[in-house]
Amino acid sequence: MPHTVLNFSVLQTLVEILATLAFAISGMMEAARKRLDVVGVCVVAGMAAFGGGTLRDILLDRRPFFWVQHAAWLWALLALCALAMLTLRARHFELTERAVLWPDALGLGLFSASGTQIALDMQMPAIVAVFMGVITAVFGGVLRDIVCNEIPSVFRDHRPYAVCAFIGTWMLELAQALNAPKWLGLTAAAATTVTLRGLALWSGYRLPGWDPDSPWKK
Amino acid sequence: MPHTVLNFSVLQTLVEILATLAFAISGMMEAARKRLDVVGVCVVAGMAAFGGGTLRDILLDRRPFFWVQHAAWLWALLALCALAMLTLRARHFELTERAVLWPDALGLGLFSASGTQIALDMQMPAIVAVFMGVITAVFGGVLRDIVCNEIPSVFRDHRPYAVCAFIGTWMLELAQALNAPKWLGLTAAAATTVTLRGLALWSGYRLPGWDPDSPWKK
Amino acid sequence: MPHTVLNFSVLQTLVEILATLAFAISGMMEAARKRLDVVGVCVVAGMAAFGGGTLRDILLDRRPFFWVQHAAWLWALLALCALAMLTLRARHFELTERAVLWPDALGLGLFSASGTQIALDMQMPAIVAVFMGVITAVFGGVLRDIVCNEIPSVFRDHRPYAVCAFIGTWMLELAQALNAPKWLGLTAAAATTVTLRGLALWSGYRLPGWDPDSPWKK
Repeated sequence: MPHTVLNFSVLQTLVEILATLAFAISGMMEAARKRLDVVGVCVVAGMAAFGGGTLRDILLDRRPFFWVQHAAWLWALLALCALAMLTLRARHFELTERAVLWPDALGLGLFSASGTQIALDMQMPAIVAVFMGVITAVFGGVLRDIVCNEIPSVFRDHRPYAVCAFIGTWMLELAQALNAPKWLGLTAAAATTVTLRGLALWSGYRLPGWDPDSPWKK
Repeated sequence: MPHTVLNFSVLQTLVEILATLAFAISGMMEAARKRLDVVGVCVVAGMAAFGGGTLRDILLDRRPFFWVQHAAWLWALLALCALAMLTLRARHFELTERAVLWPDALGLGLFSASGTQIALDMQMPAIVAVFMGVITAVFGGVLRDIVCNEIPSVFRDHRPYAVCAFIGTWMLELAQALNAPKWLGLTAAAATTVTLRGLALWSGYRLPGWDPDSPWKK
Repeated sequence: MPHTVLNFSVLQTLVEILATLAFAISGMMEAARKRLDVVGVCVVAGMAAFGGGTLRDILLDRRPFFWVQHAAWLWALLALCALAMLTLRARHFELTERAVLWPDALGLGLFSASGTQIALDMQMPAIVAVFMGVITAVFGGVLRDIVCNEIPSVFRDHRPYAVCAFIGTWMLELAQALNAPKWLGLTAAAATTVTLRGLALWSGYRLPGWDPDSPWKK
């Protein structure tokens, strides 16, 4: 889970845990589809859950990482993977991609907002802070897909995902410009991102790509 | 574009912009071939253009990155991708790999020279500085290919590319040993690299690889 | 070769060189199977040999890297690759995966122990230190496989590898808790890992994975 400055309520902590869980489960799902062993399942789940925040912290040169400061998360990850392998091999219980769409959208909103705020607090330029927020929320999934030898789905599935976070996080810049309190900016940014993601899924809107007959010649 | 110490003329700035453009376009071309959506196009173009310099800065622990200090480059990248998608989908205009070979060779020369100089200025050993220069120029393309789920072309196309930069950047070590001015070393290194790359393309020289029947057994 | 604190004997230095060689050879073998050119062979061999320790140092924010402080290793790598390409193309000599299994197991034990000790010396929590040790020993191979466009074998071949290091490195935590001298903890950790790896290979034990009919639905 990307380290977050969102710390103003128990509700919000619960949402973070739910969202981190959704990210980890997306990693386990891909690991299962690729027939990885238990090591692969744990690593891919961990990358999906913690990879985006870790990459952001490397780029911003922030230490310690969230999962170093709160090492209990690593134990929780191992326990989660063990639990998933035990219960899901029994096949009484099935999880689908649809089931994690909403927790995943919450994670997209929360982690992109908190990542952007962290960069803003470090005096990064607006566009850099927005990119850092998007990286926080999105690059866990990118690392997950690269390790599983797929082109990252966020770059090719044409359903708006990173774009929602890219738009939503500008609310934080707006809040800063208006001297609004931080919690308001964070809430507005996360809510905007989640709403846009929901609208995109509901409407089936597709992002543009290139023509089937690409004009680029090899 | 990798951060550069080459700052001694307007001509040189123009060459840098041209070369960065060539790197970004190589990313867009690969993204188009892989049918990525607009998010993928922007990210892959950005990785191809800025990835090598960013990796070098992480390895050397240098901050801020070029694209943090000059955040306008990120806006330029977004504008470039938008422009490319608008104009190229219309298909009145075609770009080929051949068209970017020369700007790309200029980028190879410039960025490997500037990357090496940066490492030398940090008192790195000669061989480390040379590797840092090659990484600056080459790893943008490596990241581009990894994200697009290809073995990086620089590792397998047998046409000298990284090797030209590896040889050319030693001119900077020579210049330093002779106490020659920096601009002279940088120019000599870049010119050597570009010339070698040009000769390699012109002659069709192929790097050695392994025998078709590899002697390594699984 | 990951930077190591194991410095208490000539024997141990010899084991380190042997193990680093095994890691580099595993990179060359994969590069050969993928028909890479000489640049690819050198880079993949270098990633396999030095990648894990470099990633650990980036995560721990340690500088200089081992291969910056002892740049002669880079020359040795280049010489090794040149030598391998010259001799192995002649095909009088064959190397198999089996031939490097034991040096590789020694590397797993040594580098995971030394990586964990480095993290403990930086006051990292126990679980973080263990992960850093495993990353040191394992992620060179992960980078090698990612660059060669394969799912990392350590995540899917079901033969215990990372798991052996994960268990063995806890000996260092035990030694620390008992105030035992460092060399004893390092030796015990490395020996435990190597023994477990040996037992795993000898017994043919397979790690659990998911059911062939995965319960995860797309």
